[in-house]
Amino acid sequence: VSAEPQIRRVYETTVYAHDVDATTVFYADILGLRPFEHYPGFAAVFKLEDGGVFLIFEPKKASAPGRTLPAHGAEGAGHVAFSVTPGSLDAFVAELAERGIEIEVDETWETGGRSVYVRDPAGNSVEFVDGEAWPDEPRV
Amino acid sequence: VSAEPQIRRVYETTVYAHDVDATTVFYADILGLRPFEHYPGFAAVFKLEDGGVFLIFEPKKASAPGRTLPAHGAEGAGHVAFSVTPGSLDAFVAELAERGIEIEVDETWETGGRSVYVRDPAGNSVEFVDGEAWPDEPRV
Repeated sequence: VSAEPQIRRVYETTVYAHDVDATTVFYADILGLRPFEHYPGFAAVFKLEDGGVFLIFEPKKASAPGRTLPAHGAEGAGHVAFSVTPGSLDAFVAELAERGIEIEVDETWETGGRSVYVRDPAGNSVEFVDGEAWPDEPRV
Repeated sequence: VSAEPQIRRVYETTVYAHDVDATTVFYADILGLRPFEHYPGFAAVFKLEDGGVFLIFEPKKASAPGRTLPAHGAEGAGHVAFSVTPGSLDAFVAELAERGIEIEVDETWETGGRSVYVRDPAGNSVEFVDGEAWPDEPRV
């Protein structure tokens, strides 16, 4: 819009799950995210170290007409990537494996960064990134 | 997983759009996000000030089998919130209005933060937050 961008960062990131509560257990107990608020069957809210907020919504309820806030709600696999503490990905992956979480892809990028992908209970593609997955300069 | 959380922050946030290119124009030219990579008809990548990455994918192509990376792709309205430069929301909203972007909801939170919600061309609910939308302590 103006010369100076006014958007600073992503504040809230959303994924959808029909079973919000089981999916909340995954993010809280398996991944170790800090649970902030939980509205059973409807939504869960996590706060991250950098002040960012991660949201899980039940898509049918979140997209129902008559809510005060704008309706939203998507069906199908979404995607989110989280940054992990540098150097911690091997230990993290080992802990996930111990808990029966299957690694779908383990990818090392041209940047030297590395990503490991799993699925949450709702089928969303969840990526853990150690370092940078994207180069400094665009390729296309 | 372990005593110390290994997930630091959200690195990539994704929304979906059948018309990736029109939606990319919205985020780049109307919202002023920095375009990073663009794969016409398939995906667009934006980098934000804090190193976060915002992604738009065409859900049918991104969920097609046979890709190297894990498939994902959702149908229906997603939701993302962006933080704006403190104090800039009024000017930002005025510029959006000049460009014909309708404000769906304008909400002031108990925290003193304020959110304005619009729709991107794909119908995703896009929120701009000045300050904090979430309280310091959970309510539930």
